[in-house]
Amino acid sequence: MNAELLGNDGPGQKKSGPVGVAVIGCGYWGPNLIRNFSTCEATRVLAVCDRDRRRLQGVSASCPQAQFTENFDDILKNPKIDAVAIATPVSTHAALSLAAMEAGKDVLVEKPLADNIRDAERLVSRARELGRILMVDHTYVYSPAIRKIKELVDSGNLGEIYYIDSVRINLGQFQSDINVLWDLAPHDLSIVDYLLGRLPRSLAAMGISHTTSDLEDVAYLNLDFGRSLMATFHVNWLSPVKLRHTIIGASSRSLIFNDLNHAEPIKIYDSGIQIDASSEVRYGILVSYRTGDVWSPNVPREEPLQNVVRHFADCIQTGKPPLTDGEAGLRIVRILEAAQRSIKAQGGRITL
Amino acid sequence: MNAELLGNDGPGQKKSGPVGVAVIGCGYWGPNLIRNFSTCEATRVLAVCDRDRRRLQGVSASCPQAQFTENFDDILKNPKIDAVAIATPVSTHAALSLAAMEAGKDVLVEKPLADNIRDAERLVSRARELGRILMVDHTYVYSPAIRKIKELVDSGNLGEIYYIDSVRINLGQFQSDINVLWDLAPHDLSIVDYLLGRLPRSLAAMGISHTTSDLEDVAYLNLDFGRSLMATFHVNWLSPVKLRHTIIGASSRSLIFNDLNHAEPIKIYDSGIQIDASSEVRYGILVSYRTGDVWSPNVPREEPLQNVVRHFADCIQTGKPPLTDGEAGLRIVRILEAAQRSIKAQGGRITL
Amino acid sequence: MNAELLGNDGPGQKKSGPVGVAVIGCGYWGPNLIRNFSTCEATRVLAVCDRDRRRLQGVSASCPQAQFTENFDDILKNPKIDAVAIATPVSTHAALSLAAMEAGKDVLVEKPLADNIRDAERLVSRARELGRILMVDHTYVYSPAIRKIKELVDSGNLGEIYYIDSVRINLGQFQSDINVLWDLAPHDLSIVDYLLGRLPRSLAAMGISHTTSDLEDVAYLNLDFGRSLMATFHVNWLSPVKLRHTIIGASSRSLIFNDLNHAEPIKIYDSGIQIDASSEVRYGILVSYRTGDVWSPNVPREEPLQNVVRHFADCIQTGKPPLTDGEAGLRIVRILEAAQRSIKAQGGRITL
Amino acid sequence: MNAELLGNDGPGQKKSGPVGVAVIGCGYWGPNLIRNFSTCEATRVLAVCDRDRRRLQGVSASCPQAQFTENFDDILKNPKIDAVAIATPVSTHAALSLAAMEAGKDVLVEKPLADNIRDAERLVSRARELGRILMVDHTYVYSPAIRKIKELVDSGNLGEIYYIDSVRINLGQFQSDINVLWDLAPHDLSIVDYLLGRLPRSLAAMGISHTTSDLEDVAYLNLDFGRSLMATFHVNWLSPVKLRHTIIGASSRSLIFNDLNHAEPIKIYDSGIQIDASSEVRYGILVSYRTGDVWSPNVPREEPLQNVVRHFADCIQTGKPPLTDGEAGLRIVRILEAAQRSIKAQGGRITL
Repeated sequence: MNAELLGNDGPGQKKSGPVGVAVIGCGYWGPNLIRNFSTCEATRVLAVCDRDRRRLQGVSASCPQAQFTENFDDILKNPKIDAVAIATPVSTHAALSLAAMEAGKDVLVEKPLADNIRDAERLVSRARELGRILMVDHTYVYSPAIRKIKELVDSGNLGEIYYIDSVRINLGQFQSDINVLWDLAPHDLSIVDYLLGRLPRSLAAMGISHTTSDLEDVAYLNLDFGRSLMATFHVNWLSPVKLRHTIIGASSRSLIFNDLNHAEPIKIYDSGIQIDASSEVRYGILVSYRTGDVWSPNVPREEPLQNVVRHFADCIQTGKPPLTDGEAGLRIVRILEAAQRSIKAQGGRITL
Repeated sequence: MNAELLGNDGPGQKKSGPVGVAVIGCGYWGPNLIRNFSTCEATRVLAVCDRDRRRLQGVSASCPQAQFTENFDDILKNPKIDAVAIATPVSTHAALSLAAMEAGKDVLVEKPLADNIRDAERLVSRARELGRILMVDHTYVYSPAIRKIKELVDSGNLGEIYYIDSVRINLGQFQSDINVLWDLAPHDLSIVDYLLGRLPRSLAAMGISHTTSDLEDVAYLNLDFGRSLMATFHVNWLSPVKLRHTIIGASSRSLIFNDLNHAEPIKIYDSGIQIDASSEVRYGILVSYRTGDVWSPNVPREEPLQNVVRHFADCIQTGKPPLTDGEAGLRIVRILEAAQRSIKAQGGRITL
Repeated sequence: MNAELLGNDGPGQKKSGPVGVAVIGCGYWGPNLIRNFSTCEATRVLAVCDRDRRRLQGVSASCPQAQFTENFDDILKNPKIDAVAIATPVSTHAALSLAAMEAGKDVLVEKPLADNIRDAERLVSRARELGRILMVDHTYVYSPAIRKIKELVDSGNLGEIYYIDSVRINLGQFQSDINVLWDLAPHDLSIVDYLLGRLPRSLAAMGISHTTSDLEDVAYLNLDFGRSLMATFHVNWLSPVKLRHTIIGASSRSLIFNDLNHAEPIKIYDSGIQIDASSEVRYGILVSYRTGDVWSPNVPREEPLQNVVRHFADCIQTGKPPLTDGEAGLRIVRILEAAQRSIKAQGGRITL
Repeated sequence: MNAELLGNDGPGQKKSGPVGVAVIGCGYWGPNLIRNFSTCEATRVLAVCDRDRRRLQGVSASCPQAQFTENFDDILKNPKIDAVAIATPVSTHAALSLAAMEAGKDVLVEKPLADNIRDAERLVSRARELGRILMVDHTYVYSPAIRKIKELVDSGNLGEIYYIDSVRINLGQFQSDINVLWDLAPHDLSIVDYLLGRLPRSLAAMGISHTTSDLEDVAYLNLDFGRSLMATFHVNWLSPVKLRHTIIGASSRSLIFNDLNHAEPIKIYDSGIQIDASSEVRYGILVSYRTGDVWSPNVPREEPLQNVVRHFADCIQTGKPPLTDGEAGLRIVRILEAAQRSIKAQGGRITL
């Protein structure tokens, strides 16, 4: 298919007017995408596609003017559709994204970008060759809380980061095709990727399954970023309580992001340890403590997904690369694939 | 030295009247032992020993009638002293305990029993040969909350245990001779040992140090009890907040022990997953959820350490073996020593 | 107007088929009504009325098939409309409800029923004369949590109720026509009315205003139900934190309803006091304490407003009286009007 | 008795060397006083007095060198005793304090100063005449948290105070001689007295008793400080949960003091309302909201009672008047006595 013939703008061209969008997949996340594209003034939902007719009916009231189809080809052939948002099972991300880009569409794809490194790499390189926008929906990166934390980290306010400890557990929605690590860890991995901007040196993952599917429902992932920094993730579908928090321990101040505390999602602790490097004390304590104020910055109440769709539209209209582009998505897939090998080897450490 | 000559009761003999106790070490924990032995009607604090004269002065008001000495031999030679409670640095536990048992004293020693397996094994075998009481102060085992949890586990109320996740973190008291794992994990390991009553098959530990001492201040320990059960521990001296909780996920009910929630330390969640083992659903969810009541049993307000000293006195007076005997202490040391090797090998898995 | 001529069912007649509903007022609550009537299979939103055209446009996407009008007469004259739901400012409730009933429509009106007793009484008597359903949207009465609490109270599980203490505070939506008592207290008053089913003997209200409007923004209301039972309410638009909880202290067990704790909204405390009535101890304690388990019953996740609209439809279709009928609405207005007089008299006690 | 003859320093004279103290009453609070006077380097516990011999025995270990007596005259006659600390039932405060002052002793008395205004006034005037220190143990005034709050209020950081709402409830220690208001409210009244430094214009109190004693076990107290400021207190011996918090709502920032949150006892909310005084909007909102950061200042971990005894010793040694002198104690008694009349008149408002 030739993008020009299909009426789409050429690669790298700026797009004027609202972006015509098709949403692919109407399961858990698709309706959220439809709602946000509908309320964004820079986008219009022109079509919705799902293999399940009942799902299409379920969302029809929310965008009555759109085209509803069970056939993805209808989307590819529709020249008014500038971009597709893909919210289908992970195993289908690569094929659908690729087909959409080949058809001249820009692509927003749910996390994780793909279920293996090879496919993720191909998506990245093909997007570059075709000059298409390939954006991964790492939603947290667009949340006001994570934006604020990024500011704090980059400003040096926290000092040197010592460790990151993240817990994302609840009595959860079991997935039938991916384990808890592929389901939940991309959230936290994308946050850490955004904050640190680099891959870990090595990792190890441990997990356990309690179903016949052999898909782990409780898992731990440990990332080694060099001797001074370790990040650890606990993800769990079997927890009786819902917890979503991340501790960022650092030299000057420490920070806790609690995604369930809507009033005070971020707390910054002006406390820490003073390490007396010159100390030669043989018996005794080499470090001292400092306790200080706690500060909770005001975080605006914005819907992160609205920021996602706006950024996607903005990238399409201006040609600028997305903050969470294919490269960012690929980094997460690299970690997940290595973690998958580690978890099947009882936590054997994998060097990236 | 001959225990008989020194006036102590022979091995296995019942002791009548209050037990004469010497407390060795007046650092952080010693004063708590003195206070509890003083208020227990079955024991009397006859002597206190510490190498630091100022520490002795610091506790003199709390047991004015006792003998205060910087010389451990004074304790060994005192025939009125039936038992010693050792609250000194870990590296000295073995030598002091051994000397005390050889001198005919029964021994209560702080956790961990020793800083290596060989010493711990020697203490266990020597206690058996000499017929002395060797009890390890695994304090949590004597807390009303853990007793209640043990009851719940043993009664089958929770069903099959799926995982244990324990967090014990705070801005902590750095130790100059042991890392955070040796310092904090014995608490949680002794709880798990008490609840499960068996050693794990294998373990892996990961940690990181931010001081020149190379002693890890943030660490994770993962115990594998066979395919169906994993226990994971997060211990941390660098956390801006204090957390002390353990999740016990199980098939029928799950339980959370929050040691900082004095009003409701135990919560039992009558929720879980129903795993449909016969399911052949290809796409879809194989498990379903059940949410239910939450129940917080009343836990009596007893000081665990008072239960420890009473149990110690009771064992001495009746000759019965302590609940947390040398064998229990040895199991914890086995785990710690293996964890130490693992942590220095970047989390390499050790089979026990 | 003659209801028969207008095509409505006669008084007390059962209505078959979905109930045709008009929603009057599209401010804060109207859109919620539209959404719930739209998703309820027993009702259809046939029309929406608001004086402000922009508000009508704002909700048009949510029920595209409905009639939108700025003229209430269009509603009254439309024979397909069986019932109206009135979500306009309080001062208009009486006139709109009356007109609707006279036009043969059944009425669901937002709380409070009216802004004065006389109007409320007239609505009740006119509804009786016309045989129309007059239901007040005391939403909490239809919430699963309050239903569960009602069960517990009625079953005698709590014993004799000693006091009720309710806190509903936040940095709030100032109202320009009513004070914080009229705005927030109806929620709690309707809960207490539902649980106890009787009017208090007397009341006193205290409040304070910090704006030029003289409308109180912080207020306390105290209801006296006889010597053994007192209910107190704190409502506040100036609180830096949001709190929504009610303590029900009772002789056998006490209960706390925390509307912000979604995981455990109800907690039942099996603790209390034993009052030794025969005691003649002069110096000493006449009562003893009992601490016990805490239990949090599972509460289904239902939207209370969905239950409201279903109950409304059910009453229309079967002719049965609503649980929160005009009489219930009138009881709340009696309390509010008396409280209004008390608050302007610095808390002078008013006997009802 | 002549103070000079008894060997005490004359009125207003500075006292050199440690202050010799007698503690009167060894019930709930007395042992805390003994412990704090014992560890304060500026004071020595020379004697302890209680009518109950068993209580004296109970505290003998904590100050073995002191004189123990059941006879208060022994205290009065002992010339080495410079000062007495009175922790007896409220009804005895006046007589004991007066006798001690007449005998030349300085006095620290538990709150409330007396159980009626007349006695409290007499204590204040007699202390002035005799030149004795009369200090009331309003412990909270000496806590680091309340000190910090006082700083914030005085600095104008909060702006104009709009309201104070205080909750002090728990399943409590019933008193046999005073109701819950006299038992618990002095804490909060002394805090408000310290922060505002003035008496309210009027007050009203409501309460209820569930025992035969007619002593209220649930009570509310409302203080009117003029049109712009109201303070309300909820005290309760029948609450299933323990709550201790005070909201201070103000124009620029609001503050919450939670005495049970040891990690973050004070939270300052940089949020509020902007009142548009010039607004002539008829229908609409006259005020707008501002949400902002939350800040929790570090509060040193000091024992307030240690600060109390040090301040008492300092006043005795330097002759300076105590921060919580008889006048402060009298203000609290004035409020309590008026509240007592109001509570017996179903909340009738009393002008002070």
